Amino acid sequence: MRTPVMPSTGTFRPLGTEEVRLTGGHWGERQAVNAAATIRHCLHWLEALDWIGNFDRVASGEEPGRPFQRAGREFSDSEVYKLAEAMAWEIGRTGDSGLEEEFQKLTARIGAAQHEDGYLNTAFGNPGQEPRYSNLEWGHELYCAGHLIQAAVARLRNHGEDEFTRIARRVADHVCDTFGPGGIERICGHAEIEVALAELSRATGEPRYLEQARLFIERHGQKTLKENGFYYQDDTAVRDAEVLRGHAVRALYLSSGAVDVAVETGDDDLLEAVRRQWDRTVARRTHLTGGMGSQYADEAFGRDFALSPDRAYAESCAGIAAVMTAWRLTLATGDTRYGDMIERIAWNVLSGAVAPDGRSFFYANPLHQRTADPEPPGGQALSHTLAGGHRAPWFNVSCCPTNLARTFAQFAAYVATTDDGGVQIHQFTPCTIDTVVDGSRLALTVETNYPEEGRVTVRVDANEGGSREITFRVPSWAEDVRLTHPDGSVRRITPGAVTVGRIGEFAPGEEIHLDFSVAPRWTRPDPRVDAVRGCAAVEQGPVVLCAESLDFPGGDLDELTVDTAVPPVLRDGAVHVAARVHDRPDAWPYGPAAPDDDGKAAEIPLLPFRLRATRGPAAMRVWLPAT
Amino acid sequence: MRTPVMPSTGTFRPLGTEEVRLTGGHWGERQAVNAAATIRHCLHWLEALDWIGNFDRVASGEEPGRPFQRAGREFSDSEVYKLAEAMAWEIGRTGDSGLEEEFQKLTARIGAAQHEDGYLNTAFGNPGQEPRYSNLEWGHELYCAGHLIQAAVARLRNHGEDEFTRIARRVADHVCDTFGPGGIERICGHAEIEVALAELSRATGEPRYLEQARLFIERHGQKTLKENGFYYQDDTAVRDAEVLRGHAVRALYLSSGAVDVAVETGDDDLLEAVRRQWDRTVARRTHLTGGMGSQYADEAFGRDFALSPDRAYAESCAGIAAVMTAWRLTLATGDTRYGDMIERIAWNVLSGAVAPDGRSFFYANPLHQRTADPEPPGGQALSHTLAGGHRAPWFNVSCCPTNLARTFAQFAAYVATTDDGGVQIHQFTPCTIDTVVDGSRLALTVETNYPEEGRVTVRVDANEGGSREITFRVPSWAEDVRLTHPDGSVRRITPGAVTVGRIGEFAPGEEIHLDFSVAPRWTRPDPRVDAVRGCAAVEQGPVVLCAESLDFPGGDLDELTVDTAVPPVLRDGAVHVAARVHDRPDAWPYGPAAPDDDGKAAEIPLLPFRLRATRGPAAMRVWLPAT
Repeated sequence: MRTPVMPSTGTFRPLGTEEVRLTGGHWGERQAVNAAATIRHCLHWLEALDWIGNFDRVASGEEPGRPFQRAGREFSDSEVYKLAEAMAWEIGRTGDSGLEEEFQKLTARIGAAQHEDGYLNTAFGNPGQEPRYSNLEWGHELYCAGHLIQAAVARLRNHGEDEFTRIARRVADHVCDTFGPGGIERICGHAEIEVALAELSRATGEPRYLEQARLFIERHGQKTLKENGFYYQDDTAVRDAEVLRGHAVRALYLSSGAVDVAVETGDDDLLEAVRRQWDRTVARRTHLTGGMGSQYADEAFGRDFALSPDRAYAESCAGIAAVMTAWRLTLATGDTRYGDMIERIAWNVLSGAVAPDGRSFFYANPLHQRTADPEPPGGQALSHTLAGGHRAPWFNVSCCPTNLARTFAQFAAYVATTDDGGVQIHQFTPCTIDTVVDGSRLALTVETNYPEEGRVTVRVDANEGGSREITFRVPSWAEDVRLTHPDGSVRRITPGAVTVGRIGEFAPGEEIHLDFSVAPRWTRPDPRVDAVRGCAAVEQGPVVLCAESLDFPGGDLDELTVDTAVPPVLRDGAVHVAARVHDRPDAWPYGPAAPDDDGKAAEIPLLPFRLRATRGPAAMRVWLPAT
Repeated sequence: MRTPVMPSTGTFRPLGTEEVRLTGGHWGERQAVNAAATIRHCLHWLEALDWIGNFDRVASGEEPGRPFQRAGREFSDSEVYKLAEAMAWEIGRTGDSGLEEEFQKLTARIGAAQHEDGYLNTAFGNPGQEPRYSNLEWGHELYCAGHLIQAAVARLRNHGEDEFTRIARRVADHVCDTFGPGGIERICGHAEIEVALAELSRATGEPRYLEQARLFIERHGQKTLKENGFYYQDDTAVRDAEVLRGHAVRALYLSSGAVDVAVETGDDDLLEAVRRQWDRTVARRTHLTGGMGSQYADEAFGRDFALSPDRAYAESCAGIAAVMTAWRLTLATGDTRYGDMIERIAWNVLSGAVAPDGRSFFYANPLHQRTADPEPPGGQALSHTLAGGHRAPWFNVSCCPTNLARTFAQFAAYVATTDDGGVQIHQFTPCTIDTVVDGSRLALTVETNYPEEGRVTVRVDANEGGSREITFRVPSWAEDVRLTHPDGSVRRITPGAVTVGRIGEFAPGEEIHLDFSVAPRWTRPDPRVDAVRGCAAVEQGPVVLCAESLDFPGGDLDELTVDTAVPPVLRDGAVHVAARVHDRPDAWPYGPAAPDDDGKAAEIPLLPFRLRATRGPAAMRVWLPAT
């Protein structure tokens, strides 16, 4: 089945991209742009910067002791593998023969660099380089191996065994041989191998991969790495930790692997530990956009309620990693709240991280850009610590573009699930679902103009079994929710999961409608979030909106306040809010409470956060000071 | 005259430490602790870490091409020089013969490392090291030379010419020879040589030093350094910049040098440029404590109104550098507002940066410490990027301890000035002032228990001239200000400078009293300061107060709100505020406005910000969310 996560047990079963096909809408569009532009854009950069060329140079067998000039950072192999994964999903989805040819060429170049014993890495262990596994803290060797394995899992499920998957299995066997009991009983400084090996075990049926994944999970917290344990989650055992901490992508890849291991080994204690950490992270360490990893320093989770919008890091890859964890928790527990977070992250962090044309990217996704900074020079790789003002075509540390590419290519797999009773719809997007429930075909068409409109229609195209259930995730923010049955009866619903039973009694062609309000609404922060106290934001459905300085006279966002007593309104296709534009003098900025100036009344248009910085340099803010 | 800044012209003339003597009070106490503990503490660390030993190893003449293992960072020489400066001030103040002996020993060791042509640096230009001036961006050679020269200026004014001052003059001559017209027409990546050469010119009467300082000032903005121009103020000419920016200490040392050059060359345009930058920095880039340099990244000024209390860097050295600039502007312009800022920085940043025992230090001075972190291991040098929770005995980059030591040793020089009419009192501290005004002796005694009490008494001890004026800086926050003349008449005063004329008509022994309220007061931020919107702080006189988690049940500062409708009260020697302690559940922290829980009423004691972190691990905040 063409799906990224396939647990052997759990509340819901995933569907593959051969069962769920996006038929348009925002995610269909994002997937089309990903296919038409992003994947080849990444391939171009990986060639141009010679990060693929590293494999050729290893394969050419340099003289011992003569180091070659390696291109890119020590983890650049992983970008090649993540792109290979994106290509595998895309080939599976469309059968693109040109891409298949590229995939095979890439396979040959990667394979040529593999050592006899399965070891494969262009930064270590080759002539003139530091020895294998001599720097587990920062060397990223197992991290790279993990991404190769994840790509192989994608290939196995989209295509079947081939040279690429054989390369990856040799790598996996080598990792098990080397890091098993009695071997190097340590971990990699960047989690990833855990989730990869667990999934490879699922995809191949080989239990030793799962066991090795379990060992890596359990070794976290045993302080087998030097210093900085907090940064790479080696400070505390996964099952003992209270909250996600340290480097956000590492923490969330590790959580994903921990859920996989917990599910496959029946380790409820470990599963509960990840849920507990997730819940507290969502309550105290997550931005309105779903962005996680609140601080630039160490690309890390900040402390509780340290959620500064202008210093928010909210890395694109952390968004992807959070979706990975949330999806696994959805499948394991059947709790639809995780789908709320996937939706929030997808619409705000992931979609906004890629330009509409698919050729430039945000690495960090702060919620506040203080100044309209000039655009950096085009066409060159930029520092990944670049602030949030502009998307870049590539980065010196360029984990996000390829990660986004693989995620968009597989996005249909996150839309719906099944169980023995029917189908659960987690994300609202135009699509067809054609699957088998309890041995019999069930085919549905989902039509919606969400989130512009709050109606989701499910049409039954075929139901060859008996009584079936369709379950909708009803977002926690949804108001005025109604479910219209095929017989025309209407039920009022409160947010949470809602199930429509006994579809089997209705004929194909009959429809169910889920309706709810997607009117733009004011949102207020928890009073403990210091950095946005006294502010409000506007959301429309799952979409977080923002103000850009281009859209009002003067353009100084520091001088804007909004009136939350007036509901946001839709006009001319855009959400508008009542605001006041101030003109405050400069002086020592602290003193006895003094009445602020009244400012001039204005009405300010907002735009989706994901569309920020697409019209040229602008200051931007999500959280608007309230009068 | 024993004073750090001695302009040849300006509105006010500085007094020396032989004319103003601290006779107790907070600053007398700080100076005593500095003398008794801090100076020798620094000497101990400089020996123990072998940063002084670097001079010995250069002097021993290692074989060319065989690099010796140097201790410390590339700028460690500057710590030795700043300590020498502190010693020079302290010897001048007290005549401490033990310290004089140490000073001479240090002089010999430093001098032994000097090259024939005057060059002196232990990190460059010696056998096996990179050549002189091969890395002006980061090498800090002229920065180190500048601190040597500043120490020599202190020595010249406290002692007179000696071997130390001759070493420094040879360095200064070498710098002028090397960096003058036709030489290396570039700058150092860290400003400091400018202010040092300008003062050496004043101290020696040698005009070429001033001219070289002027050249260095004018070269800023000519982009003679590689990249990062913004960071070291090489992006824009000093006279063209609108605001202080980049690395805060660099920016403020440069500003200090620019004022010196402007004053000595009559360059009003340059002086006005620094005033303009200062004003905008104070209005938009300065914390309530007077802390400057709002961001950890690059130890730099942040953007306008980006003043996050928990991410405030507010480096101790930036506080010192801001005092340096503000003092020069005071002397040049006679505007007492600069004294307000010196007072604010001194009481909150500088005094708090040194532990009461004088043996541990803050490098960064954030206004909010989110968690009560465990104390780091004692007795070892710590990273200077350590957050604000604990003072450390020393740092890997240890600029602050020696910088604080020299500043406290010379503090009396910032208390008062003269002009042809009389004396101006800028800082309120018990002291004696014994000077000459217009050719005749004027001696005063200042008595005060400020800031606990708002009375400053000036007693005339001697007035051998005619009519004289005493001028007080009346702080901008002062309320209910009254001036009581010797004849008992009382005048109501508004903040600003206030002058009492015709002292000469009264007999010695008669007194003037300045009275004002130092009742604790609520302070609100400018509505444009995002990070503290909806908060209030308490100030008492110039002293910023804070809450520590040790002082209330539960100790979770996230759950505290204060009622600003109730004025803070003094009880049992501490300021108390009316508060509510909440107990809020965890959930997705963003949603429609909901009434917050009422919390339980409590009364919370506050303490001066400078005394934070002196009772063990604690969370701390200056800005308190208001109900």
